Amino acid sequence: MNGITDSLAGFARDAAPAGPAAQVLRLSLLDWCAVAFAGRDEPVARALRAQAREEGGAPQAALVGAPVRAPARMAALVNGATSHALDYDDTHFAHIGHPSVAVIPAALAAGELAGASGADVQAAALVGAEASVRVGLWLGRGHYQTGFHQTATAGAFGATLAAARLLGLDHDQTVMALGLASTRASGLKGQFGTMGKPLNAGLAASTGVEAAVWARHGVTSDTRGLEGPQGFGPTHHGAGAAGALDGLGRDWLFEGVHHKFHACCHGLHATLEALAEAPAIDPATVERVEVATHPRWLRVCAIAAPRTGLEAKFSYAMAVAMALTGHDTARPGTFTDALCAEPAVVDLRDRVSVRPDEGLSELQARVTVHLSDGAQHALFHDLDAPQPLGARAARIRAKADTLLGHASADRLWQLIEQDAAPGTLMAELAG
Amino acid sequence: MNGITDSLAGFARDAAPAGPAAQVLRLSLLDWCAVAFAGRDEPVARALRAQAREEGGAPQAALVGAPVRAPARMAALVNGATSHALDYDDTHFAHIGHPSVAVIPAALAAGELAGASGADVQAAALVGAEASVRVGLWLGRGHYQTGFHQTATAGAFGATLAAARLLGLDHDQTVMALGLASTRASGLKGQFGTMGKPLNAGLAASTGVEAAVWARHGVTSDTRGLEGPQGFGPTHHGAGAAGALDGLGRDWLFEGVHHKFHACCHGLHATLEALAEAPAIDPATVERVEVATHPRWLRVCAIAAPRTGLEAKFSYAMAVAMALTGHDTARPGTFTDALCAEPAVVDLRDRVSVRPDEGLSELQARVTVHLSDGAQHALFHDLDAPQPLGARAARIRAKADTLLGHASADRLWQLIEQDAAPGTLMAELAG
Repeated sequence: MNGITDSLAGFARDAAPAGPAAQVLRLSLLDWCAVAFAGRDEPVARALRAQAREEGGAPQAALVGAPVRAPARMAALVNGATSHALDYDDTHFAHIGHPSVAVIPAALAAGELAGASGADVQAAALVGAEASVRVGLWLGRGHYQTGFHQTATAGAFGATLAAARLLGLDHDQTVMALGLASTRASGLKGQFGTMGKPLNAGLAASTGVEAAVWARHGVTSDTRGLEGPQGFGPTHHGAGAAGALDGLGRDWLFEGVHHKFHACCHGLHATLEALAEAPAIDPATVERVEVATHPRWLRVCAIAAPRTGLEAKFSYAMAVAMALTGHDTARPGTFTDALCAEPAVVDLRDRVSVRPDEGLSELQARVTVHLSDGAQHALFHDLDAPQPLGARAARIRAKADTLLGHASADRLWQLIEQDAAPGTLMAELAG
Repeated sequence: MNGITDSLAGFARDAAPAGPAAQVLRLSLLDWCAVAFAGRDEPVARALRAQAREEGGAPQAALVGAPVRAPARMAALVNGATSHALDYDDTHFAHIGHPSVAVIPAALAAGELAGASGADVQAAALVGAEASVRVGLWLGRGHYQTGFHQTATAGAFGATLAAARLLGLDHDQTVMALGLASTRASGLKGQFGTMGKPLNAGLAASTGVEAAVWARHGVTSDTRGLEGPQGFGPTHHGAGAAGALDGLGRDWLFEGVHHKFHACCHGLHATLEALAEAPAIDPATVERVEVATHPRWLRVCAIAAPRTGLEAKFSYAMAVAMALTGHDTARPGTFTDALCAEPAVVDLRDRVSVRPDEGLSELQARVTVHLSDGAQHALFHDLDAPQPLGARAARIRAKADTLLGHASADRLWQLIEQDAAPGTLMAELAG
C-alpha cells in the first residue's frame, strides 16, 4: 500500500479537475484577489514588499500592491502574507485552516515562472487546495491544538503540489518536493495576534514554490516525507488519520470551503448572517439582544467592550451593535477605534449578552432581539447549510465589488472566467 | 523571571566574547572554511548555486565555490548546505548538532550585508554558536529522538542571534526576530542519507538571516517565541530543560565543540585516533582487530562489508582496514567505491570485529590489535579528553592544508587572525 506522500504525488500529476469544485476554485480565486488587494497596505505587506525590493532578483512573478516583480519564491511569500493580512480570506473547517492564502499565491507565482496557462494554474490551485485539506485532515485536530497553524503546515504541502504540477515535475521529483516541504514546513499559532500570523501563510506559499524548485534542481529528500517514522506527521503531533485520502481524485472536499462576508472573526459570522436575515429593525426600538453560540467561541471572540478596531473584530457585542446601527461589516475599514467609542454603538453594545450553547455547532448561532414593546425576533443561522453555487457567486462578487471597486472586480471576474494567464490577473492587482 | 527568549536576546546584545572561546571560534571558522570549500562540488551545493544564479538579486553576500554574490538570505542557504555536504564540520554533543554550519554562514552573510568588521562577525558567530548550544540543551534529547535535526532547529535560533547582532537590532527587535525564527525553524532527521540533511543546515542559516531582516523591517511576532505555550519548545517536544542557560555570558559551552579529523561518521573517530596513537604496525602482521565501542554506534556505523564510499564512512571494519593499510582518512576523496573492493583492504576488513561496551562513553573506543606472533596492541582513546588549544590548532590547520592546499589554508588562517572582513574571507573560497 502506498503511503500518503506517494499518493499525493500521484494525485497531483493525474487529477483532472472539473465540475463544481472547479467553479468553487474560481470563486476562491476572485475572493483571494479581493482580499489580497485589500490587504496591500497592511504593515506586514509593506514590510515584505520592502524586503523584496531590497533583494531584487529575476522578475519571475508579480507582487500584489505594487508594480514590482520578484523571484517566484519571494512573490509567493509576499502575496501569501498580504492576502492573509486582513484575515478575510476563505476557511475550510476540515482542513482547519485557510487553504487559498497558502496555495493560490504559490500557484500564481509558479505559474508565471513556468509560463503556464490560466487553465493550468486554476487546475493546479485546485489540486493543491484539495491536497492541503486532505493533509489537514490527516494531521488532525491534535496537531492544531498542540499549536501548529494548519494554514501554514498543511498549506505548505498543498502549495508544493500546485507548484510541482505547474513546473512539470515527474512523479519521483514530486515525491522529492514533498519530502523537502516536510523538512521546511513550519508555522505556529503562538503568532496569532501578531504579523507572524499572516506571515505564516506566506511561508507556506513560499515553501511550496521553493520545494518544487529544489526538486527540479535535483535535490533529493526523504521519500516518505509526511508519514515516515521521522517524517512531518509523526514529529508534529499528526494523527495520521485513516480515511483522510478517501475518494481522493473523485470527491473534492475543497467544495466545502467557506468564504467570509464580514471583515471579522469567523466566530461572529453566523450571528451577523442571522441578523441580516431579520426584517429591518430600528435600533432605537431594541431593548436587548441575546446571542447563543458554540462554547469555543467564548474564548475567541467575546470581548465585551472592545477599544480598538482590531478588538472589535473579536466582539459579539460590537458586531451586533454595528450591524443593527447600519455599519457595513463587510468593509475592513469599518472596524475602527473611533467606532468603538461612538455613543450610539456603545449604548447598543452594552445591551448585548452572549451565552454558550452546547447544542449549537461552531457554525451556528441563535440570536434573539428583544424590542422595547415586548416583541421579539428569534433568528438562527447555520453557515454550513448548503448554498447554491449561484448564491455563493453573487455574494463573493459583491464582496469583490466592496474591496476592489466594481469595475476592477468585474474585469477580474471576466479574466478568471476566460482562464486568463496568471500574469494578466496579477497586473490587475498591482494597485 | 525572564523567559529564554528574552534572556537570549539580552545575551546577544550584551555578550563581549573573549578568551579561549574566541580562540576556539577562530579555529571553527578556519575549519568551516575548509569543509565548505571541500564541499563545493557536491550535488547539493551545485543545485543550490544553480537556484541562486536563476534567482539573482542584490549582491549582498558571497557564495562558496563560485565568484557569485546573492542576497544575504540566499547566500546563507547555499553556504550552510555546502559546508554540511561532506558531514565533515564540527559537532557539539550537548547541542546535539553541528553549530558552525548553521551559525557561521549566517554571520558571514549578515556581516557582509551590514558591512561589519571581521571582529564583529567573529563575536556574533560565537554568540550565535553559544546560543545554539544553549537552545539545543534546552530542547533536549527528546526533541532529537522524536526526529528533529537539532543542527537545523536549535541552529536557526543561533543563526538568528548572530544576524540580529550584526544588523544592529535593539532588544525588542531581537525578541521579534527570535519569535519569527520560532515560526520558521524546521528540519527533520528523516532527511538523513539524502541531500535534505545538508540542506537543513542551510535552512537554519537562512532562517536566521531572514528572521533578522524581517524584524528590521518591523514584522512583529510572538514575544515568547521559544517558551510560550504555543511556542517552538512546547510544540516541538522540547524539554525546556532547567539550567540550560546557567552561566550564560560567563561560561562558553561552545569551547567543548569537537572538530572532525576523519572524513567519516563521528562514531569511528575514537577508534581511528586510538590506531593513530599506536606504534607503526605492518598490516601483513595483523591477525585480527577487536573494537569495543558504545552500543549506540552499532546501529549507526557498523556496516560490515561496505560496497560504496558512502557506506565506508559508516563502517568500523573498513575504517580500521584503511588506517592500517595507510589510506588517509582525513581526505574525503579517500572513501571510494573502488577502495571498498581493493583485495588488501577487504582482506583486513574481514578480520575486524566490533562489540558493544556499555562501560564506554560515546566518545571512547578500545581497540585491540592481535598480531600473528601472538603479541597485542591494546589501544584506547577518549575524544573528550582535554586537548591543549595549541594541539587543536595544529590539527585543524593540518586538516585545512589537506582540504584547501597549504597556501590557501595559510592565507585564510592569517586573515582570520587579523580579523579580516567577511567579504575578504569569502573571496578566498570562491574557487
